[in-house]
Amino acid sequence: MLGGTTGVDRIGSVPDTKQMETKQIGVTELALRDAHQSLMATRMAMEDMVDVCEDIDRAGYWSVECWGGATFDACIRFLNEDPWERLRTFRELMPNSRLQMLLRGQNLLGYRHYGDGVVDKFVEKSAENGMDVFRVFDALNDPRNLERAMAAVRKTGKHAQGTICYTVSPLHDTEKYVQLAGRLLDMGAESIALKDMAALLKPQPAYDIVKGIKDTYGDVQINVHCHSTTGVTLVSLMKAIEAGADVVDTAISSMSLGPGHNPTESLIEMLEGTGYSTGVDMERLERVRDHFAEVRPRYAEFMSAITGVDTDIFKSQIPGGMISNMESQLKAQGAGDRVKEVMEEVPRVREDAGFPPLVTPSSQIVGTQAVFNVLMGRYKVLTGEFADLMLGYYGECPGERSAEVTALAEEQTGKSPITQRPADLIEPEWENLRVEAAELPGADGTDEDVLTYAMFPGVAPKFFTTRHEGPKNVGKTAEQVKKEADAASGASKAIREPIKYNVTVGDHSHTVSVEPA
Amino acid sequence: MLGGTTGVDRIGSVPDTKQMETKQIGVTELALRDAHQSLMATRMAMEDMVDVCEDIDRAGYWSVECWGGATFDACIRFLNEDPWERLRTFRELMPNSRLQMLLRGQNLLGYRHYGDGVVDKFVEKSAENGMDVFRVFDALNDPRNLERAMAAVRKTGKHAQGTICYTVSPLHDTEKYVQLAGRLLDMGAESIALKDMAALLKPQPAYDIVKGIKDTYGDVQINVHCHSTTGVTLVSLMKAIEAGADVVDTAISSMSLGPGHNPTESLIEMLEGTGYSTGVDMERLERVRDHFAEVRPRYAEFMSAITGVDTDIFKSQIPGGMISNMESQLKAQGAGDRVKEVMEEVPRVREDAGFPPLVTPSSQIVGTQAVFNVLMGRYKVLTGEFADLMLGYYGECPGERSAEVTALAEEQTGKSPITQRPADLIEPEWENLRVEAAELPGADGTDEDVLTYAMFPGVAPKFFTTRHEGPKNVGKTAEQVKKEADAASGASKAIREPIKYNVTVGDHSHTVSVEPA
Repeated sequence: MLGGTTGVDRIGSVPDTKQMETKQIGVTELALRDAHQSLMATRMAMEDMVDVCEDIDRAGYWSVECWGGATFDACIRFLNEDPWERLRTFRELMPNSRLQMLLRGQNLLGYRHYGDGVVDKFVEKSAENGMDVFRVFDALNDPRNLERAMAAVRKTGKHAQGTICYTVSPLHDTEKYVQLAGRLLDMGAESIALKDMAALLKPQPAYDIVKGIKDTYGDVQINVHCHSTTGVTLVSLMKAIEAGADVVDTAISSMSLGPGHNPTESLIEMLEGTGYSTGVDMERLERVRDHFAEVRPRYAEFMSAITGVDTDIFKSQIPGGMISNMESQLKAQGAGDRVKEVMEEVPRVREDAGFPPLVTPSSQIVGTQAVFNVLMGRYKVLTGEFADLMLGYYGECPGERSAEVTALAEEQTGKSPITQRPADLIEPEWENLRVEAAELPGADGTDEDVLTYAMFPGVAPKFFTTRHEGPKNVGKTAEQVKKEADAASGASKAIREPIKYNVTVGDHSHTVSVEPA
Repeated sequence: MLGGTTGVDRIGSVPDTKQMETKQIGVTELALRDAHQSLMATRMAMEDMVDVCEDIDRAGYWSVECWGGATFDACIRFLNEDPWERLRTFRELMPNSRLQMLLRGQNLLGYRHYGDGVVDKFVEKSAENGMDVFRVFDALNDPRNLERAMAAVRKTGKHAQGTICYTVSPLHDTEKYVQLAGRLLDMGAESIALKDMAALLKPQPAYDIVKGIKDTYGDVQINVHCHSTTGVTLVSLMKAIEAGADVVDTAISSMSLGPGHNPTESLIEMLEGTGYSTGVDMERLERVRDHFAEVRPRYAEFMSAITGVDTDIFKSQIPGGMISNMESQLKAQGAGDRVKEVMEEVPRVREDAGFPPLVTPSSQIVGTQAVFNVLMGRYKVLTGEFADLMLGYYGECPGERSAEVTALAEEQTGKSPITQRPADLIEPEWENLRVEAAELPGADGTDEDVLTYAMFPGVAPKFFTTRHEGPKNVGKTAEQVKKEADAASGASKAIREPIKYNVTVGDHSHTVSVEPA
C-alpha cells in the first residue's frame, strides 16, 4: 500500500499495514478523440480506427471517448466524413463499451449558444445514434450554461457527467471547485469530471479537490482528465486516485505525451501493488499501441511540434495552443517581435474579464483582445467576441468584470450588458433550422443533418454536396510513408556533397556537378 | 499537504491538517553526465557546456553530476578531450556546487577489476581535481566490490554515497534492499543512492524501500535516481519523497525524457503546496533549459530514436539499450529475425546466473550469452565474460548459480570457481601501470595519465598522441544546423514533384525533367 493510502505520516510513524481490498480504477481511453485532436489536429480518418476497435472494445476500459466538437468539425471540414455515421460505426464496432463524448453545454459542438430545443434534439439524436456518456462543460464554468444539456441527457437515460474546468487564478480555489461540483450534482450529474485541459493541475490541488468533493457530497463518481504538457500530471492522477477518484483519462502510449495525455500503460503499471488496479487487459493494449504506432507517422504533417514538456505554462498560465495562436496573429500583422508584450497583456485582459478559465473559446477571445491591445493601444478596439464576453453574452465569469471596460463594450457595440442565462434570449429556432437545412443540396432531411447544419452553418452546406463521394483520408498511406522516408534519406545524403551527372546532348558530352547553393 | 504526508486514509478518515514545516528536497542535475549519456551517446563536448555552468552553479542544486565512465571514455575516444581537464574546468566554473560522479566500485571507470592501490589512487586524484560526491555502485550489488572505493572516498574526506542498483527478480524484495543499505552504511556510506537505471522502479516499491531504510537505520540521507523510459518514475520520485527521500535526480527539461530522466522543472512544479520544496531557482533553470535547447539539435545524429515511453520493459525486464544491442548482434549474424527467441532466452540465462541486475556490464554479458544460446544451442559455447560471471570473477550474484552451467564454464575455461572478493586475486599493479604509461608517446608522467591508461588501455595511447591538437567537437555548429534544416526543407520539397529545367547547349534548347528515381 502506498503511503497515501495507509495513514503513514512523514514524521516517522509506523505504517498501518492492515489489508485493504484492491479498489478498481476505471480508465477512459482518449485515443479516438482528444489524443488525435491534441497531437495531430484531429485529422485521423475513421478508416484508420476501424481495425483497432475490437481490441479497444475488449480491453476493459470504463469508457471510450470518441466524439466531440473538433472531431465533428474535422469530419465535415477536412475528411468528407459524416460524423453521425462515424458515431454509428463506433457503436457497431464497440458493442461492449460505453462511448463517451465531450459536449460544450449550451454551445453543443458549435461556437454559439443554441436554443434549448436544439440542445434537446442534439442530445436525443446523439443518444439514439449510440452515445452513452455525455461529459458536459462550459468554458466559463457557468452552471447555467450546462443545465439544459444535463437535463436533456438525464431524459435519455444516458450518463450525465458534469464538468469542472480546472484553471488557476486568484479567484479559483479548492472551495470554489467543490461548490461548483455541488451545483452540478444538484442538476442531476451522475458523475463529476475534473477537466485539466492545460496540464495545470498539480498533485496537491488534484488531491484536495477530489477529497473535498468526496468529503462534502459522499461517494460521488469522480473522473479526472489531464493533459500531459507540463510533465507533472501522471503524479496528479496518482494523488487524485489516492483522494478517491474513480476513473482517470489516458491515451495509449503511441498516441500520448507532448500536448496530449499520459500513457495508458504507464498508468496501469504505476498502480501495481498500490491497492488500486484497473483490470485493463495489457495484451489488448499492446495491440492497440501497435496499431496506432503504425498509423501515427501517416499524419506527420499535422503533428504537433512539441514532444517534450513545457512548464512555462505554470508561469504564464497561458496554454501552449493559445500562444501559437497569438504568434501567428502577430506575424500576420508583421509584429512577430511583440509576443512578449502580448504574453504580459494576457493576464491583465483576463483579470478585466473576471478571470475566465482559458479554454476554447475564452482562450481565443482573451488572446485576440490582448493582441489588439498591444497593436492598437489598450482597449482602443474591442473584438465583437470580447465585447460580448464583457457584456455577459457568454455567461457569468468567475470574478467581477472591469466596469470601465464593460462601459467601453456597451459604447462600441450598442448592446446592453445582461445578467440572465444567455440562451434565455434565444427564440425557439429548431423549425427555422430545419427549413433552412431542408433547402440545402445534398441534405437528406434527417434531424442529424439539421443538427450538422445548425452547428457548422459555414461548412455543412459544402459537405452535404460532396458527402456522396465518401470519406477522404488526409493521412498518407503506409507505402507513401515508406517511400518518402527512403527518398528523404536519399535526399539528405544528396545534399551533403556535390552530385555529378553526365549529360549528353547530340554528340557532346558534359559533366555537370550539382550542389546546394 | 498531500495525502501521503498527512495520515489520510483511503477509507474516508478525516485528514490530519496539522501544520508541518516544509521539508527541503535536494535536486541532483544530470544534464552534464547521465542526460547526454542517455540521450546523445555521451557526445556532448565541454565547449557546449561551459557557458551554462554559471547558471547551474547558482541554481541551488544539491549536486551537479558531471563525470563517470562513459563521459571519461567518450572524452578520450571521440572528443580528444582530457577528462581530468574537463573535471578541473567544472571545478573552476562551479565553485559553489557539489560535483558528483558515478563510480563502478572496484571497476572504477573501466571494464575490469583493479587492484586496491589503483582504486585508492583514482579516488585520491579525483578528489584532488575537484570531485565532491562519489556515487559508488556495483552491477551485481556485491558489497565487497564497493568496500575499497568507499573506504578510499572516506579517506579523502569527500562524500561517499553507497548505491543500491534496483532490479526486479524473484529474489529481489524490499527486505533485501534494506539489508543491502545496511551493508553500505556499515562501510561508512554518508548517504544511500537508490539507482533505477532501467526505469523499473514503480511508486509502491520506491515508497517501501525508502521507508524501510529510514525505519531501520534512522534518518540516513537517501538519493533516488530514476530514468524516465517507462513513464511512471516521476510518480515514483513523489512516493519516494513522501517516504522520506532527501535528494532526487532529474535533468533539465530540454535534456530530459525518453531513455533519459524526469524533467527538473516538472519535479519542482509537482511539489508545490505539498509540504516539500526544492529551493531551486526557476529563473536560472529557464536559462539552463534554453541553453541546452539550443545545443541539443547539434547532436541530432547521436540522438536516441526513442522519444515516447516504453512499458514493455516491465514485461521483459530487459532494458531498452540491451535489446538494441542484441538486435545488432543478431543482424551482424544474419539472424535479425530471432530477436524474440533471444528475448525469451534472456530470463533463463539470467536465472542460471543467479539473477544479477541487468546493468553495465552484466546486461551485455547476459545478453550476449543469450544470443549465443539461440544461435549455437544452449550453452554450447560460453563467452569468456559469461564463464567468468558463472565462476565468481565478477563477484557474488544475488541468487545461486546453476551448478551445471558453472561446471561447463570450468570445463571450457580451465579456471576454477572462486568465492573470495575478485580483487583479492589481483597483485599490486600501480607500479607496472606507471611504468607502462610512462613509455607512451604524449603521456605527461602525471598520475592522472597513468589512471587514464589503466582504465582505457586500448584508447589512451592514441589519445595521448593527439591530445595536443585540442578538443574536437563532434556536434554540428549552430550555423550547420540551420543550413541543413533549410536544405532539407528545400530537398523535401524538391522530391515531391519532378523539376523541369530548360537546358541550352549551343543553338539547341531542351526541356529536362528531373525526378527521384
